[in-house]
Amino acid sequence: MKKSRTSRTLKIIPLGGLEQIGMNITAFEFEDSIVVVDCGLAFPGDDMLGIDLVIPDVTYLKENIDRVKGFVITHGHEDHIGALPYILKELPVPVYGTRLTIAIIENKLSEHVLSGEPQLNVVGYGDVVNFDDISVEFIRTNHSVSDASALAISCAVGTVIHTGDFKVDFTPVYGETIDLQRLGELGKKGVLALLCDSTNALKPGLTMSEKTVGKTFDNIFAENTNHRIIVATFASNVDRVQQIINSAAKYHRKVAIEGRSMVNIVTTATELGYITVPEGLMISLEEIRNYPEEQIVLIMTGSQGEPMAALSRIAASNHRKVSIQPGDVVIISSTPIPGNEKNVSRLINDLSQLGAHVIFQDTHVSGHACQEEIKLIYSLVKPKYAVPVHGEYRHRIAQKELAVSLGMPKENIMILRSGDVLEMNRRKMAVTGTVPARGIMVDGLGVGDVGNVVLKERQYLSENGIVIVTFGYSSSEHLIVSAPEMITRGFVFAKESEDLLENAKAVIAETLERYSDDPNFEIGRVKNEVRNNLSEYFWKTIKRRPMILTTGIDI
Amino acid sequence: MKKSRTSRTLKIIPLGGLEQIGMNITAFEFEDSIVVVDCGLAFPGDDMLGIDLVIPDVTYLKENIDRVKGFVITHGHEDHIGALPYILKELPVPVYGTRLTIAIIENKLSEHVLSGEPQLNVVGYGDVVNFDDISVEFIRTNHSVSDASALAISCAVGTVIHTGDFKVDFTPVYGETIDLQRLGELGKKGVLALLCDSTNALKPGLTMSEKTVGKTFDNIFAENTNHRIIVATFASNVDRVQQIINSAAKYHRKVAIEGRSMVNIVTTATELGYITVPEGLMISLEEIRNYPEEQIVLIMTGSQGEPMAALSRIAASNHRKVSIQPGDVVIISSTPIPGNEKNVSRLINDLSQLGAHVIFQDTHVSGHACQEEIKLIYSLVKPKYAVPVHGEYRHRIAQKELAVSLGMPKENIMILRSGDVLEMNRRKMAVTGTVPARGIMVDGLGVGDVGNVVLKERQYLSENGIVIVTFGYSSSEHLIVSAPEMITRGFVFAKESEDLLENAKAVIAETLERYSDDPNFEIGRVKNEVRNNLSEYFWKTIKRRPMILTTGIDI
Repeated sequence: MKKSRTSRTLKIIPLGGLEQIGMNITAFEFEDSIVVVDCGLAFPGDDMLGIDLVIPDVTYLKENIDRVKGFVITHGHEDHIGALPYILKELPVPVYGTRLTIAIIENKLSEHVLSGEPQLNVVGYGDVVNFDDISVEFIRTNHSVSDASALAISCAVGTVIHTGDFKVDFTPVYGETIDLQRLGELGKKGVLALLCDSTNALKPGLTMSEKTVGKTFDNIFAENTNHRIIVATFASNVDRVQQIINSAAKYHRKVAIEGRSMVNIVTTATELGYITVPEGLMISLEEIRNYPEEQIVLIMTGSQGEPMAALSRIAASNHRKVSIQPGDVVIISSTPIPGNEKNVSRLINDLSQLGAHVIFQDTHVSGHACQEEIKLIYSLVKPKYAVPVHGEYRHRIAQKELAVSLGMPKENIMILRSGDVLEMNRRKMAVTGTVPARGIMVDGLGVGDVGNVVLKERQYLSENGIVIVTFGYSSSEHLIVSAPEMITRGFVFAKESEDLLENAKAVIAETLERYSDDPNFEIGRVKNEVRNNLSEYFWKTIKRRPMILTTGIDI
Repeated sequence: MKKSRTSRTLKIIPLGGLEQIGMNITAFEFEDSIVVVDCGLAFPGDDMLGIDLVIPDVTYLKENIDRVKGFVITHGHEDHIGALPYILKELPVPVYGTRLTIAIIENKLSEHVLSGEPQLNVVGYGDVVNFDDISVEFIRTNHSVSDASALAISCAVGTVIHTGDFKVDFTPVYGETIDLQRLGELGKKGVLALLCDSTNALKPGLTMSEKTVGKTFDNIFAENTNHRIIVATFASNVDRVQQIINSAAKYHRKVAIEGRSMVNIVTTATELGYITVPEGLMISLEEIRNYPEEQIVLIMTGSQGEPMAALSRIAASNHRKVSIQPGDVVIISSTPIPGNEKNVSRLINDLSQLGAHVIFQDTHVSGHACQEEIKLIYSLVKPKYAVPVHGEYRHRIAQKELAVSLGMPKENIMILRSGDVLEMNRRKMAVTGTVPARGIMVDGLGVGDVGNVVLKERQYLSENGIVIVTFGYSSSEHLIVSAPEMITRGFVFAKESEDLLENAKAVIAETLERYSDDPNFEIGRVKNEVRNNLSEYFWKTIKRRPMILTTGIDI
């Protein structure tokens, strides 16, 4: 039996993406249906030593697996789809997305072993997917990957609009402008809540059209007719790739693609018609030697200075097929993601030292809405409640201030933490509980077996190194039966520190000697004392505290 | 006997600061005199795990110690003075600088143990210090610390101008504008070479005057009369501190200072008259409780999000005396130094979540000259040769392009690497050799005992952790005499991975068993095989390769 209209609520539960930037996944729950928007991964923070990636904790979804109807995906970026290969193993539910989005997911899943065949469903803009108590309409938006969607999520208590990642591009390279009309129409009918992208909420004005980058490329190509041109950008930015191809065609150059993800996405996007390549323009990396340098464009990964990506390997003179020639024009067509600034600087310096002319200004526009675009969406949708999403705390607070400046009551705008359970209907909105939502660290094949203790040990090892002391003893005869051995790793340069290490061995030997005939011999105490004396010696001598491990072998 | 005029050369040898940003130290050598400009340290890169700081390699200076006449210091920033406590131990020569510069050095040296009394000498603007074959004139400049100097370094073959770090501030807060007249006068007489700050050579236009920040402070103070104001900035920016004090006085607030380096420098600068504080305005941190919040300004360190600085500890709710109150206005008066972007973001998010209103835009101006200022200096000095200094490779290349745009011949502009020996006179300029110039890493009291091998071990440990296997054996009886022990650190969370660790022990036991009666028993081989089998097991099972150490104790 259903509850009365006034007490029924829609639950919105962000399971990541608020503290852990990048890991976008939000559950929408009404009565017997749970629909999950996106399923992203996060890249490890500086303090997550040795961790490959972070995926969301979906304990809550697993506990309610019979009610989970499916994933609806806004677009094909890693921070929105990257955890699917892991999560679908535990939650084998259908996945819905637009054509390119599903194709990118398909590519990704093919690299993993899943138990069953994934249920992937292509949805068109304007289509509505029905999940029992919830329905989801896909609405066209613009972003730095084609085929991005906003979602209108409807249930008996109202409609919620989730923008996904978006910008307003009046002159998109492929497809059409974000469907402002449909957003206005839904707004006119009444929208319960708006979940809007906050990434650029601190930036005034409007984000420039992707097309402006195409003009910059044309100018650069026109000014550099005597040299090879290399462009690095995000693999998923198919519109950017299209524009490089357009400039190449205009200036009679051949194009070769390099970098695994770039090759994957360009192949898929070309097959599906999202990229149009003139006949004969594309050549393989092996064929570039058949053309003079000034007739070549290379498009590749590595615009963020990622150490293993194509451009970084070329900059480090570490690429098998491409090396920088003096005069090469290298265009870095992206802005450093926070945390990558130093890597990008190093990349530019390395390329410059090899004689390349590096261009990195005005060759990128953001895929996210700035302040005036956010205001436009609020003005079209006119939601009762607002929940800023996608962005750091400071960005979401900035969106809140924008909403307030448009006349929304402060108390109708909610800044959530991951795991908060937000309940709402036309009468009220409140956080009524929390569910687990900490990121789960993936290291190799291990999911969740590296926790804070292990990370703290790695941190300590990385700063101080380790000293291992081993000796044999006899618990029955109460004595030490072998000379101690000492091994160090990551501590000091052995050749430069012979005295230090010799003296340290003497400290160990002295300590052990005191126990050689002790009737109260107790191995735990011996090990402790060795550790303490050695630690004290190192601190006194060189003000360092390596991790010290003492193992006794009972003979 | 002196060589003839045409074959004598001035040598310029940068011993750091070119690859290793931050470590500014340049030797000027003519005949029997070597004068060294600055003696800075560098902060460790992300890959220098556990390293506290990096100091220059002064092997060349030590080998020529009898000719080293002294250090001349351009200004009191760490990247220009920070290595003095280490280098003066090996090169106890006189140090020359302006009044505030010497006072800051004095402060710094007082925290270290030196063998003798340091010979510190205060020099005024316009003063010339004579060092036998070389003389050095101090010329007033503007920078983000008071009392900054350019240097005119003269010898028989000509005069070289080293700008130090500088900007052109027509309305400085303290003191006067950079001595453009003197630079013009020297230029008119003829300057052999210009070594000019490249930091902002990629930035068009002019750097704003420090005074513009004062106006921003006034506006912020006027708009926030109901809340406490906290300002974080660089301790050494005494003009910035002066302007905060001015705004506080204007809006009838008391000022307290927090953070060790901030207290040190403000005290010194006030004593020397570089900061003027109205009577009764300054209070201690303990006294702030005696005033209402809206009458308080706190000035502190931590504007770069440095984890141990005052503001970061407050943001982490980890400061003994100050905690954020909702409504507190926090001004972050600096721009993140490359590499610190994420720390600053975290700082802003943490403060915002505690309820502070964080202001970080338009509250800082750079201390370095932009393109038009660089062009102005070139136009005044009109050097024969140019050697861009202070900045990454890409910044120095950008300065070279500016110089070329002013009509300088390309071949008269030299981009050096640290350690290059540049020789010049009126007839020619060329790199004629190199000297050692790699940074030396300091870890605790150890100077240079951590090298690349140790860093690689730390890196490996930090990403993979360590597994230590110990067992007893008898070399005489050719057999294993104890059950093996296994310890892990930074590898897996033991509780979650019991099966893995049990199976790993079984792999070790099986391997050892095969040798229990082997007549060809050889401990090296046994250890190798244990390591290989264990490594293979871990890789097969969880795709990880911890460092594995095997120690056998011979009983």
